[in-house]
Amino acid sequence: MPVKVLDFWGSPFAARVRVALAEKGVSYESKEEDLLVGKSDLLLQSNPIYGKVPVLLHDDKPVLESSNIVYYIDETWPNPQLLPACSYGRSRARFWTDFIDKKVYDVGRNIWMGKGDEVEAAKDEFIDVLKKLEGALGDREYYAGDQFGFLDIIFVSLSCWFPTYEKYGGFMVEEETPTIAAWLKRCYSRETVAKSMPDSQRVIEFVGMMRKMHGIE
Amino acid sequence: MPVKVLDFWGSPFAARVRVALAEKGVSYESKEEDLLVGKSDLLLQSNPIYGKVPVLLHDDKPVLESSNIVYYIDETWPNPQLLPACSYGRSRARFWTDFIDKKVYDVGRNIWMGKGDEVEAAKDEFIDVLKKLEGALGDREYYAGDQFGFLDIIFVSLSCWFPTYEKYGGFMVEEETPTIAAWLKRCYSRETVAKSMPDSQRVIEFVGMMRKMHGIE
Repeated sequence: MPVKVLDFWGSPFAARVRVALAEKGVSYESKEEDLLVGKSDLLLQSNPIYGKVPVLLHDDKPVLESSNIVYYIDETWPNPQLLPACSYGRSRARFWTDFIDKKVYDVGRNIWMGKGDEVEAAKDEFIDVLKKLEGALGDREYYAGDQFGFLDIIFVSLSCWFPTYEKYGGFMVEEETPTIAAWLKRCYSRETVAKSMPDSQRVIEFVGMMRKMHGIE
Repeated sequence: MPVKVLDFWGSPFAARVRVALAEKGVSYESKEEDLLVGKSDLLLQSNPIYGKVPVLLHDDKPVLESSNIVYYIDETWPNPQLLPACSYGRSRARFWTDFIDKKVYDVGRNIWMGKGDEVEAAKDEFIDVLKKLEGALGDREYYAGDQFGFLDIIFVSLSCWFPTYEKYGGFMVEEETPTIAAWLKRCYSRETVAKSMPDSQRVIEFVGMMRKMHGIE
């Protein structure tokens, strides 16, 4: 059954899907969307509600929304298992996934899209979000224990935009949340993560272009 | 292992948990929170991130966020199974759950909390949300086929506030989305739903009081 990903190089959400498929050793065809020029018909037909990447097409059936796709990947290709084995552990993974999905990217965008005082407020909120996620990690190596897993993928994939937030927010993740910074280094030491993640410098250039398009600079 | 629910009679999210436990035949202790007077220490300790009902305490371990709780209930007490058996069906249930969680209650609140033109815009958006959910139901009896299941619980529980939205938005769900109205009747014919849902008239009175508190009328 063929596996395709409707992809975009700079999307931290598409990066989740790339990391999960790499962890499972599933080969797939990546179809890069040119979001600035226009979305493909395949994307709009596959995701009529949101029209967003990533989409996983498995045997031509669309699976939508990145955290949902990672869940589907884990259930469809069970080895190695990414979600915790116990139902309580899975409920905790889903809770923090929802928290990350609600907070990290949107608050981060308020840093690089904000004007004046908005930037400072967004930076403070972003650091508060990171500290809550640092609390959830505790003294574990990874979010569910000593194995890299579901929640690590969900969170680490968004980190490719952290240098952008640091640049425009005027802060350093390593200074504010050193435990998160150490966990990030552990995650990036995995080839599945390192090779799936967009280049942070290219993200910074992309965001600079977006800021010009939106008349912020 | 004792099961407790930190509950609030009028919460459509707490209603999800009550319906799911009723479907499973799990007996539990309901601890009613008085949200107007103040939240209990147990609620604030169990849910430090959001401080919201419902919370499921299973053997004193907290499970948070209503759709996540229904998922946990289905995995912990497997009979009858609420989620679809196949991973693609489960991905579809999670996708629409997320859509419902993002849209239904918040857009509905914009109807009864809105002022002037905001109300009309919120009403139009709410009807659009219902039409999308009507499209997802298609010609099936329930969301996953001929059995009442996970997504039915997620959506039907929010319907106890529909008469409030109809009153302040000046529309009828039955006229706008007759297929949804017929599905609602099927759901309410189940004792597990009917006995778990707050009284819609009492919700209308509660919302009238909230509007006075917020200076809307």
